[in-house]
Amino acid sequence: MRLATIRTATGNRAVRVDADAAVETGDADVRALLERPDWADHAAAAAGPTHPLDGLDYAPLVPSPEKIICVGLNYRDHVREMGHDMPEYPTLFAKYAPSLVGAYDDIVLPRVSEKIDYEVELTIVIGRSVRHATPEQAEAAIAGYTVLNDVSVRDYQNRTSQFLQGKMFDRTTPLGPWLVTSDEVPDGGLAVSTVLDGETLQSSTTDELVFSAVDLVVYLSEIITLNPGDVIATGTPGGVGHARKPPRYLTDGAELVTTVAGVGECRNTCRLEKS
Amino acid sequence: MRLATIRTATGNRAVRVDADAAVETGDADVRALLERPDWADHAAAAAGPTHPLDGLDYAPLVPSPEKIICVGLNYRDHVREMGHDMPEYPTLFAKYAPSLVGAYDDIVLPRVSEKIDYEVELTIVIGRSVRHATPEQAEAAIAGYTVLNDVSVRDYQNRTSQFLQGKMFDRTTPLGPWLVTSDEVPDGGLAVSTVLDGETLQSSTTDELVFSAVDLVVYLSEIITLNPGDVIATGTPGGVGHARKPPRYLTDGAELVTTVAGVGECRNTCRLEKS
Repeated sequence: MRLATIRTATGNRAVRVDADAAVETGDADVRALLERPDWADHAAAAAGPTHPLDGLDYAPLVPSPEKIICVGLNYRDHVREMGHDMPEYPTLFAKYAPSLVGAYDDIVLPRVSEKIDYEVELTIVIGRSVRHATPEQAEAAIAGYTVLNDVSVRDYQNRTSQFLQGKMFDRTTPLGPWLVTSDEVPDGGLAVSTVLDGETLQSSTTDELVFSAVDLVVYLSEIITLNPGDVIATGTPGGVGHARKPPRYLTDGAELVTTVAGVGECRNTCRLEKS
Repeated sequence: MRLATIRTATGNRAVRVDADAAVETGDADVRALLERPDWADHAAAAAGPTHPLDGLDYAPLVPSPEKIICVGLNYRDHVREMGHDMPEYPTLFAKYAPSLVGAYDDIVLPRVSEKIDYEVELTIVIGRSVRHATPEQAEAAIAGYTVLNDVSVRDYQNRTSQFLQGKMFDRTTPLGPWLVTSDEVPDGGLAVSTVLDGETLQSSTTDELVFSAVDLVVYLSEIITLNPGDVIATGTPGGVGHARKPPRYLTDGAELVTTVAGVGECRNTCRLEKS
């Protein structure tokens, strides 16, 4: 089952995305849907107003999550590319809701930087509150998976020891277009890629993950209660623009396609922030 | 004017805290109140149900902020204590809503750590959306000030390069009891202090701030839209337990009083997390 948040003339709506149409579930967005204890049955049975798939206007999958948690340095190939040792613990940082855009929206390139980079990420969406989870409980708490492009403003990211300020710019982070429920995500490594203006710049598989989705939910739930609609971006593989020689940054008009095979794809045009 | 969020038998309520009683404003909490364009007039005129001050049950001042932004290394004395150079840019990290507790609630000491520390912080609450603010616009966007105790789990904080995981544990961060509107906060340096079991361990003034409240709002608004109810903790002065020789950490039953003179005071008992 695929679930999404779409924009309509009268506001956001959660929908089940079927092969031939999107069907409203009666919830304002995917977070509100996932806050129903019976969200899976509710969504499967939903028979609200329908929308043709052509021309659906996807909002960020979860427009206002309680938490957006990002994991750094979690692909073996990216760890090597950055010159680090394999980590013992996940590296964690945050984003805030205003950084999100829909899967096909424009990415706004901040005027204050010329060092803006892409990062494709397999992303977990939580469907059940959980704390101190066992691996089994962690698996059950994952509603499904989506795609996040952790667009990063490298000069701000590196101004201090803490990444946050390079990760939180308004309207820089595509999230969506939908979540695919866990039962429908293929087993085994998923191909993840970034294509910039037709050129493949990231290409790896989730077999390269240091900490798996279940590992991350177990670890995070040792620290904090994860709640429905929480978004956990699992990190990006090698090939980011900042690590290339010469570096390769995003520019006005650039077309980005970030894909996790079997999950989804964000397609975004980069547009320089207006004065 | 002092504004707070209190718990009642029928849920949270925003109140104006007068000298003799708390008066409901008709909003679910301080964030909902601040989202009114005329929040100051609305709160000043509010004449809803009243509550005696004795026994008020304070919720976290903003129970569910869109953003909790924390500033590190922002007191000259703390920068020296940690052995760093004076920073050119603010160091920024995040917290999430589940880390918050009320100003007089128990602080939950996570079972997984024995290195838990206090950090008193003068804290900004935003009252108007703002992006790319001038200093004048930044000042106008600040609704007022409150107190946050940035309780920090030092071993988790230092597991990786990113502080977040030591800053986000459930129910570790007192916020409140109220916000004092900017017009009523004394000019000049405010005394900030932490008293642990009767012993003063932090004692400084906001004259030691490297980046002022207005500086921080200007800088942050270059990156992201600040919105009503956003919380910005401005950093802690010297004297934290982790930097003491020998180190001094929080233990079960410890009593913490964190104060910003002219703003407010949190008083919390530390309780070990139950198995």
